[in-house]
Amino acid sequence: MRLLFPLLLAAVVAAATTGSEEEFLNQIHALRPRHGAGGTPVQGLSCLSWRLGVEAHNVINWKTVPQACEDYVGHYMLGHQYRKDSETVVNEALVYAQSLHLGGDGKDIWVFDIDETTLSNLPYYANHGFGVQPYNSTQFNIWVDMGKAPALPESLKLYGKLLPLGLKVVFITGRPESQRNVTTNNLRKAGYHTWEKLILKSSNYTSYTAVAYKSIQRKILEKNGYRIAGNMGDQWSDILGTHVGNRTFKLPDPMYYIS
Amino acid sequence: MRLLFPLLLAAVVAAATTGSEEEFLNQIHALRPRHGAGGTPVQGLSCLSWRLGVEAHNVINWKTVPQACEDYVGHYMLGHQYRKDSETVVNEALVYAQSLHLGGDGKDIWVFDIDETTLSNLPYYANHGFGVQPYNSTQFNIWVDMGKAPALPESLKLYGKLLPLGLKVVFITGRPESQRNVTTNNLRKAGYHTWEKLILKSSNYTSYTAVAYKSIQRKILEKNGYRIAGNMGDQWSDILGTHVGNRTFKLPDPMYYIS
Repeated sequence: MRLLFPLLLAAVVAAATTGSEEEFLNQIHALRPRHGAGGTPVQGLSCLSWRLGVEAHNVINWKTVPQACEDYVGHYMLGHQYRKDSETVVNEALVYAQSLHLGGDGKDIWVFDIDETTLSNLPYYANHGFGVQPYNSTQFNIWVDMGKAPALPESLKLYGKLLPLGLKVVFITGRPESQRNVTTNNLRKAGYHTWEKLILKSSNYTSYTAVAYKSIQRKILEKNGYRIAGNMGDQWSDILGTHVGNRTFKLPDPMYYIS
Repeated sequence: MRLLFPLLLAAVVAAATTGSEEEFLNQIHALRPRHGAGGTPVQGLSCLSWRLGVEAHNVINWKTVPQACEDYVGHYMLGHQYRKDSETVVNEALVYAQSLHLGGDGKDIWVFDIDETTLSNLPYYANHGFGVQPYNSTQFNIWVDMGKAPALPESLKLYGKLLPLGLKVVFITGRPESQRNVTTNNLRKAGYHTWEKLILKSSNYTSYTAVAYKSIQRKILEKNGYRIAGNMGDQWSDILGTHVGNRTFKLPDPMYYIS
């Protein structure tokens, strides 16, 4: 990350020293470099093909981003293509949501994951190799506990358009119950002002995979009379399993894989 | 397709007049243009984002490729990125297959779709707007009945490596039973010399979606004692539904959508 790092550091420091959290939240533009991510192949590995393989769920159970793709993923995440890819997914979701005939009883819900779906941890990952470094829960939780994750702009836009349609929002996240307060405050600061439920992973589910834990939570929602109109996440484990909802949407995330 | 068309026409004509089917089969290189497909955004639409949306099953139920993406899809299909994207999927599949502990009773199978999975209809689609033109079954069947579809090189390579592992190959295709002979001959000519079963869509299933028809066929296979180790197709309808197999693989196809 020789080219990116000074720019990122400057941006992160600038954002952290403005003294205005509101300016920092709701946007991730400050971290963008000047150039987008092209499909330039690294020797023996097309990073664009790797990323496509991740998004289409062909490349699974990977631990870290291939070292050779660090610059590629960094430029992708900070450039225009990540935004455009997210926008395409969100546009499809909105057209779908607008086509629905809702029950009108307040039981039609839209399930959102949180990290890399509604809130962005890009300021953290930009300082930790964009997924090339192995996941470090201590360091990551220090970042989460700051409660400064900005909204993913396209997801926030979708959120703002789903509510007037009569859909209620339910967040299901792998964040632990101990992060409820910081997550609540972070969501509100980032622009997510209201929701039906915020479901965090209680200690009962520590040993469960994300697929199993999230399937159970969705099953409980349906038992309680909710109808899952849409289900959106950045991980396939958000939208695989059971009770996945009437339609699912996979937001891009080439930085990490959760099973 | 102003830039591509003369080159394609020349290539197709050249291929058709060599008199040697063997030269034409087993390769699709003759149709390649000089340049690969970049992610250059068309106004108001990123064709790269659209293609990613298709591959990640966010963009569904589409009838034709967006007009604005005809050149993009054409260059993609004929250029290096389609090959590289296919190669990545095939490499994942091979690593997975090599990790399996097979039963040794000849009941472990690999399910392949045919069109755009094992055989390529690119010579046809190159002359029909790469998916921009609505599907024309009469014209398409004339092409199929020629029996000249080349192998997808990466898939043929995978096929050749699966057999020595002890996996049997089963083809499940949406092609009708009436095309059994031409399909058998085409597969053989293209390099697929042996298989356990070739399952075509009998007239009983005409009204079934691909998802339903293929799920039933896989269920029957499992009832007959087969274990589906892998399942590979270019359409999500090849790998969604029930009895999908132990692991699924989605090959790229931005030219058409089958539900």
